[in-house]
Amino acid sequence: MNATARLLSNNEAYAASFDQAGLTAPPTMKVAIVTCMDARIDPARMLGFAAGHAHVIRNAGGVVTDDVIRSLSISQHHLGTEEIVLVHHTDCGLLTFSDEEFAGARELSRGMRPPWAARTFVDLEQDVRDGIRLLVESPFIPRKDSVRGFVYEVETGRVREVSGRES
Amino acid sequence: MNATARLLSNNEAYAASFDQAGLTAPPTMKVAIVTCMDARIDPARMLGFAAGHAHVIRNAGGVVTDDVIRSLSISQHHLGTEEIVLVHHTDCGLLTFSDEEFAGARELSRGMRPPWAARTFVDLEQDVRDGIRLLVESPFIPRKDSVRGFVYEVETGRVREVSGRES
Repeated sequence: MNATARLLSNNEAYAASFDQAGLTAPPTMKVAIVTCMDARIDPARMLGFAAGHAHVIRNAGGVVTDDVIRSLSISQHHLGTEEIVLVHHTDCGLLTFSDEEFAGARELSRGMRPPWAARTFVDLEQDVRDGIRLLVESPFIPRKDSVRGFVYEVETGRVREVSGRES
Repeated sequence: MNATARLLSNNEAYAASFDQAGLTAPPTMKVAIVTCMDARIDPARMLGFAAGHAHVIRNAGGVVTDDVIRSLSISQHHLGTEEIVLVHHTDCGLLTFSDEEFAGARELSRGMRPPWAARTFVDLEQDVRDGIRLLVESPFIPRKDSVRGFVYEVETGRVREVSGRES
């Protein structure tokens, strides 16, 4: 049984005791969380929220890409969120290679470079600050009252603030 | 106290009883899950996995964008995942407006159209199939042995298969 089959089997148990049919789409806490795909991060446990409370956007690194801005724009314009929480984390895979190394390896194995950058970084805190700046400057994200950036320490479970804007 | 402050307060309790310092970055189930940012989806509960098991990539819609392909490429090339699970869901916000409506509204309020499409869809199952095709055709995703697509029913908690490739 591969991983996908195990996950589907787990879902049968989840559906059998499902009790959240009454939830609606707009997040009740009016917050969107952006973080890394890293397997050690369980956003709901890390930040103590439940189903229905918050949007969660995740990609490699938790970096602020156009797709993150698209998602946040929809989150705010169509689903009423007002706060943004951006979380990078220690021991991130994106600290272990460079964009050029990634593109070069693909060129070697596939004969072509990807049309996108891997979006690696060398300074965790600086990438959080750069991400906050991109969010604050975006004309497509209307609510900027609370846009705050953090680093999650996978060694301690603690989220510490790096940068933010709260008014 | 706003939502962000409540989440940070919750994290203090999480860190106080943190017991996962020994986990490492590569997902032990060797699987990456792609799904929507929707607040009603808690991937770990929906599919019954724990910290350390799986990569989770989420955006508005769970649509396959370049950022998703970037994330999956890094997931497979650098962190050893081998299977992909793509999950859209019923009652998705992206079924309620069109790309043109979204861009037109931004043009009206901001004086400019976004440089990206909102990536809405009118047929949930068809967008899952289109996403699977994009993943299977991407030269930057090397492992295609198990690439399967599903719809999560927010009314029942059940994940049902739409399309897939398993060899």
